[in-house]
Amino acid sequence: MTTTIAKGLEGVLFTESKLTFINGTEGILTHLGIPIQEWAENSTFEELSLALLLGRLPNAQELAEFDADLKANREIPGELVEVIKAFPRGVHPMQALRTAVSHLGLFDPQAEETSEAARTAISRRMIAQFATIIAAINRAQEGQEPVAPRLDLTHAGNFLYMLTGQEPTAEQARLFDIALVLHADHGMNASTFTAIATASTLSDQYSAIVSAIGALKGPLHGGANEAVMDMLDEIGTPDKAASYITDKLDRKEKVMGVGHRVYKYFDPRSRVLRDYAAHVAEKQGKSHYYQILETIEKTVVDRLGSKGIYPNVDFYSGTVYSDLGIQKAYFTPIFALARISGWCASVIEYERDNRLLRPDAEYTGATNQHYVQLQDR
Amino acid sequence: MTTTIAKGLEGVLFTESKLTFINGTEGILTHLGIPIQEWAENSTFEELSLALLLGRLPNAQELAEFDADLKANREIPGELVEVIKAFPRGVHPMQALRTAVSHLGLFDPQAEETSEAARTAISRRMIAQFATIIAAINRAQEGQEPVAPRLDLTHAGNFLYMLTGQEPTAEQARLFDIALVLHADHGMNASTFTAIATASTLSDQYSAIVSAIGALKGPLHGGANEAVMDMLDEIGTPDKAASYITDKLDRKEKVMGVGHRVYKYFDPRSRVLRDYAAHVAEKQGKSHYYQILETIEKTVVDRLGSKGIYPNVDFYSGTVYSDLGIQKAYFTPIFALARISGWCASVIEYERDNRLLRPDAEYTGATNQHYVQLQDR
Repeated sequence: MTTTIAKGLEGVLFTESKLTFINGTEGILTHLGIPIQEWAENSTFEELSLALLLGRLPNAQELAEFDADLKANREIPGELVEVIKAFPRGVHPMQALRTAVSHLGLFDPQAEETSEAARTAISRRMIAQFATIIAAINRAQEGQEPVAPRLDLTHAGNFLYMLTGQEPTAEQARLFDIALVLHADHGMNASTFTAIATASTLSDQYSAIVSAIGALKGPLHGGANEAVMDMLDEIGTPDKAASYITDKLDRKEKVMGVGHRVYKYFDPRSRVLRDYAAHVAEKQGKSHYYQILETIEKTVVDRLGSKGIYPNVDFYSGTVYSDLGIQKAYFTPIFALARISGWCASVIEYERDNRLLRPDAEYTGATNQHYVQLQDR
Repeated sequence: MTTTIAKGLEGVLFTESKLTFINGTEGILTHLGIPIQEWAENSTFEELSLALLLGRLPNAQELAEFDADLKANREIPGELVEVIKAFPRGVHPMQALRTAVSHLGLFDPQAEETSEAARTAISRRMIAQFATIIAAINRAQEGQEPVAPRLDLTHAGNFLYMLTGQEPTAEQARLFDIALVLHADHGMNASTFTAIATASTLSDQYSAIVSAIGALKGPLHGGANEAVMDMLDEIGTPDKAASYITDKLDRKEKVMGVGHRVYKYFDPRSRVLRDYAAHVAEKQGKSHYYQILETIEKTVVDRLGSKGIYPNVDFYSGTVYSDLGIQKAYFTPIFALARISGWCASVIEYERDNRLLRPDAEYTGATNQHYVQLQDR
């Protein structure tokens, strides 16, 4: 018998989707057919999140209602704040996020409802609550009191405020908003797939999202921009960047944040982030990390650009996040803060035509064995 | 361009496994090549769990060490007991289990280690801890104080003791042990697959198991024996069983607990469970549920047996669990109590030759769209 094993299920199509299109060879990423560059330039995380949930651009009233909903849900249950404050110190932030979001479901009387309306209502709340939960975890782990949300700031601005206790500048809030827009969805990645696999048993929205957090936590998925920052820290000062990278490339070693499994041309998200980060740097002065980054970028593009290897979005986001006062360990939770919208929208879309996900494994073990009594082994 | 979408990934092979073999047409289920009937007759949940982790039958010393390990880990952290006691009343037991197990990871200093040795050590602890967690959730939700584990009982016997506060008879403990053996693994089902999908990003063992709990929670996966009990409750008394089922079959309606996606012949697990349940019923008297069950079985086999449709394992397990004093709402957590061994062993096996799971979706949405300013929509 000949069987083919699709390792990693790479290239296997398991469903249809109308949300996100990616063409890695041409460096194209669209949501609802609209290029990511246009979303980043014109839209906000709030609008893109709603558009993904609706499957189209919202009108002004829908967007205003969604925005009001998000604001109304910035506050999380007081009991959950206490749970988060009681987490042991030093836990992995993604373990804390997984646990807090699982806990959040216990306080939601609608948690067990799995209709499209219920999943959507839960998702609208969760998108808002993720920001408050992540900021509260970070502060509690630092031994600081969580900061109550403010309603006069955007989703991005309020998150930075809750995290740092300081109101960001308009440019900082917008830079972070763009980063969230760029990470809100990316087609059928491993965490979105895991969320769908969980929901395919008709399990609830919280279970699906908790699974996605667990998958994103893995170093093969989230965590890449954290590795970029480790590299920048290892380099130390801007003057050492060029030789560090040249040496790495000479030794054929992997440079973190360079190249992408999907994008064989410039990752369109990295261009957008680079341009706005440059704009902010122009205005507020180039940070230490930013200067290192610029040198690395130049070296990498000179050496590898002709081979289709370019800096990816993780390369820029790490620097941007650091300069916004976000700790390295919180880069993956920030990824979740953005991707929650893609997870929720993808699960809701899949559930419209649900099919239990249950691929098979080829059995290669022993056959015709018998139980042997313990004394005879 | 022609593309084929493998809906539900049915029939798609994504990996190899040496653990479990299923031949649904012939009613065969083996673990490590040994028929499930032999496991049920000779072995225990402790031994099968270790055999799945090892990939072979353990020797006497290995089994004794494993048993001692399980006993040493029956106690869960006191903080976790407090967390469980503070869960809101009336939550879905699987939501509570998902949250408690996610929380358990926060107390484990080894949680972030992902080597095979670490995953195995965590798994050995979790197999023991699941019993204590599930019993504690059930008691706390009932407003009762959790019962501390006893070390002089088997895994199955101690669980029933912690759940009910009463020591089970030897036959009851053995019947429950057999039920755990029968549910410990079942190849590539949706929850095992979800656990693997999560771990395929190199995420940790807790994240993988938390995802599996979320997937098992769905009514298309766990929950089938709960539906059987709903039916038995609807029937009410044994004398009404035959006509209820005959009417259902005449109307071509689905009878819960009858037929199986995989088994087109008698589910081998259901035979084992039926036989031992009959043995206990013989000795301790036939319960109300057992009498209804016997009548249904006879009616179903007479009418549908020739078509290859037989009662499945859920059909018997619901009655067995009820007669052991387990509430209907806890049948799915009991499923998890058994399947934790299969989940852990399957993840560990997959991680030996890990490949990120990332299938694709076919994009069927809009193309060449542009962002439209809000005032123009």
